[in-house]
Amino acid sequence: MDHELLRAEFPVFQETAYLNAGTCGPLPRAAGAAAVGLLHGAEHQGRAMPHFETMLAAQEERRARYAEVLHARTEDVALTTATTDGIVHVLQGLSWRAGDEILIAEQEHPGLLGPLGVLVRQHGVVVRSAPLEDIVEAVDANTKLVACSHVRWTDGALAPAGLAEVGRQIPVLLDGAQGLGAVPVDVEALGCAFYAAPGQKWLCGPIGTGTLWIHPEWQSRVEPRAVGYLNLDTPSAGLQSRPWPDGRGHDAIATSAEVTVAAVRAMDVLADVGWDAVLERAATLAGTLADRLAESGRTVAPRGRTTLVSWSEADPKAAVARLNEAGVVVRDLPGTDLLRASVGAWNDEGDLDRLLGALG
Amino acid sequence: MDHELLRAEFPVFQETAYLNAGTCGPLPRAAGAAAVGLLHGAEHQGRAMPHFETMLAAQEERRARYAEVLHARTEDVALTTATTDGIVHVLQGLSWRAGDEILIAEQEHPGLLGPLGVLVRQHGVVVRSAPLEDIVEAVDANTKLVACSHVRWTDGALAPAGLAEVGRQIPVLLDGAQGLGAVPVDVEALGCAFYAAPGQKWLCGPIGTGTLWIHPEWQSRVEPRAVGYLNLDTPSAGLQSRPWPDGRGHDAIATSAEVTVAAVRAMDVLADVGWDAVLERAATLAGTLADRLAESGRTVAPRGRTTLVSWSEADPKAAVARLNEAGVVVRDLPGTDLLRASVGAWNDEGDLDRLLGALG
Repeated sequence: MDHELLRAEFPVFQETAYLNAGTCGPLPRAAGAAAVGLLHGAEHQGRAMPHFETMLAAQEERRARYAEVLHARTEDVALTTATTDGIVHVLQGLSWRAGDEILIAEQEHPGLLGPLGVLVRQHGVVVRSAPLEDIVEAVDANTKLVACSHVRWTDGALAPAGLAEVGRQIPVLLDGAQGLGAVPVDVEALGCAFYAAPGQKWLCGPIGTGTLWIHPEWQSRVEPRAVGYLNLDTPSAGLQSRPWPDGRGHDAIATSAEVTVAAVRAMDVLADVGWDAVLERAATLAGTLADRLAESGRTVAPRGRTTLVSWSEADPKAAVARLNEAGVVVRDLPGTDLLRASVGAWNDEGDLDRLLGALG
Repeated sequence: MDHELLRAEFPVFQETAYLNAGTCGPLPRAAGAAAVGLLHGAEHQGRAMPHFETMLAAQEERRARYAEVLHARTEDVALTTATTDGIVHVLQGLSWRAGDEILIAEQEHPGLLGPLGVLVRQHGVVVRSAPLEDIVEAVDANTKLVACSHVRWTDGALAPAGLAEVGRQIPVLLDGAQGLGAVPVDVEALGCAFYAAPGQKWLCGPIGTGTLWIHPEWQSRVEPRAVGYLNLDTPSAGLQSRPWPDGRGHDAIATSAEVTVAAVRAMDVLADVGWDAVLERAATLAGTLADRLAESGRTVAPRGRTTLVSWSEADPKAAVARLNEAGVVVRDLPGTDLLRASVGAWNDEGDLDRLLGALG
């Protein structure tokens, strides 16, 4: 893998040690160029049938790209607007009775907790939590669904491998916000029923994109509630029309062709290098950063072989500002003393040097 | 109003008599340029906190622009991804019992019928229909909601004025797909509880944008189900966090800053001319087209003072293709013998001449 060629695809690295893909990935030049091309066409040719045909073709390309990195069948993949959009789709699409228990991990993201709070108020479901490390042992006879991070957003811990076994008994919904494009994902091997992931983080696409994988056995058991024209098998059938019985039935109602082609081209940049190489380089470089931070005397939060590295700072907000001044972009985690760096295959040792140098 | 200056904002008219805003409006140059500027910034500066601050500011600008054309308070306006997205939000956010009746008009669009079909299967609600012209008289004691077009998509008929009176007794959901930006909309005067509209048709914005107005008295009675980080009043409160009690709580989960600024700038182009002038010119020009088609011996479908003009052709698909060859863009309406032209303030008599000339 020629990582300098990959890095050169991302203009942000001309000036900045950008270590913030866990918020939004760097945006490759090719993604922006594709969106600009589409916009130009829309302005000059209008947006009648040929534009729709372009949009529909781009949607199917986008579905296929997500399927590749999920190691899934294309027809089981839905196009969403965000990780949370996929989570909502699953939670609202299942049937619930008062008292049904959902087991989650501690430290989950508001993007999972918000939609779960809705279910508590709407149906009286009960949400119980356990540490992510102990979630397999915390499952009991009342658990109807396990919903947790694949990679914990605060520190990069991985969900335990034993979850795959749990998934043979009860459905598991994985929040892949820090998983897809960051660590190896093989949805069947993970044993989950649902995997929700963002397009704008480790897949380097626009905000407003994401994906939801639904296991073939669960495709028809998640009832789509947000059903628009493109989700319907026979729109002319009116009230009798049904959602497509595959990923298309679970797609978000509308996303522009500009956004869709940008998401496709961003994934192309990474796929051209090879996903295995991208994931390997990112994990190795993140491990190097964790080691160097520890060697510098800092306390690094426990983590797995992932792309997030979090460590304690006396004044995290001041540290973020100081790093920004030095052209290094990381984030703090409100309510904690942690800074979090997100390390991708597009980063290099020079970025780590700049981070450590600016930390002092 | 200098309509030539307005027309010059839209590159599509350099070549084409584009009469298809009822599908997607012409996209003004300024909208594309704003998106391109944002993309450039995202590529070069990354998408950390400053990008989010830009995005949030643009969202509030977008909310204010929709409020202006809705004649509504900004805080009652939600940002959606499509008309249907807003319709789903309302239908899923209300409480239903089996047997509850929803009254709709005949010839509604699949974007309303699809979400209603979900409610029938999900809750056993009953959907009854009446001609749009007779919908006021069709309301009875069992009607829990009236849901219908503000402007009928097939022929440009207007919902009857008497609906405002109905709205004092029971909630009315207006599908404004062919209303907002096309005909005068004053949501309070219309007497509706909910008004759902697209951003990509008569407001000339990107696909993937729309708006939902919710009457102040209904803001807290529509329970948001799709709740993401930006919808929550206190994301750190986890399961206890609640959606904002205003339009922000009803916003779609995610839309990119690029799309949002494009939507804002498109509305700016029209607002700079003045909405009253835009609506007046469009309605007058559409009326002229209807008259000229009738004078040419064609049967024009009954319509109101709107921007849609539909008429019968022996072979509608062939006519669309022939017109396209001549640089005239209109659409046919599947399952009928109708062609539909959408006439905006950006059109001129020359577009009508080209249409009539190519029809032969």
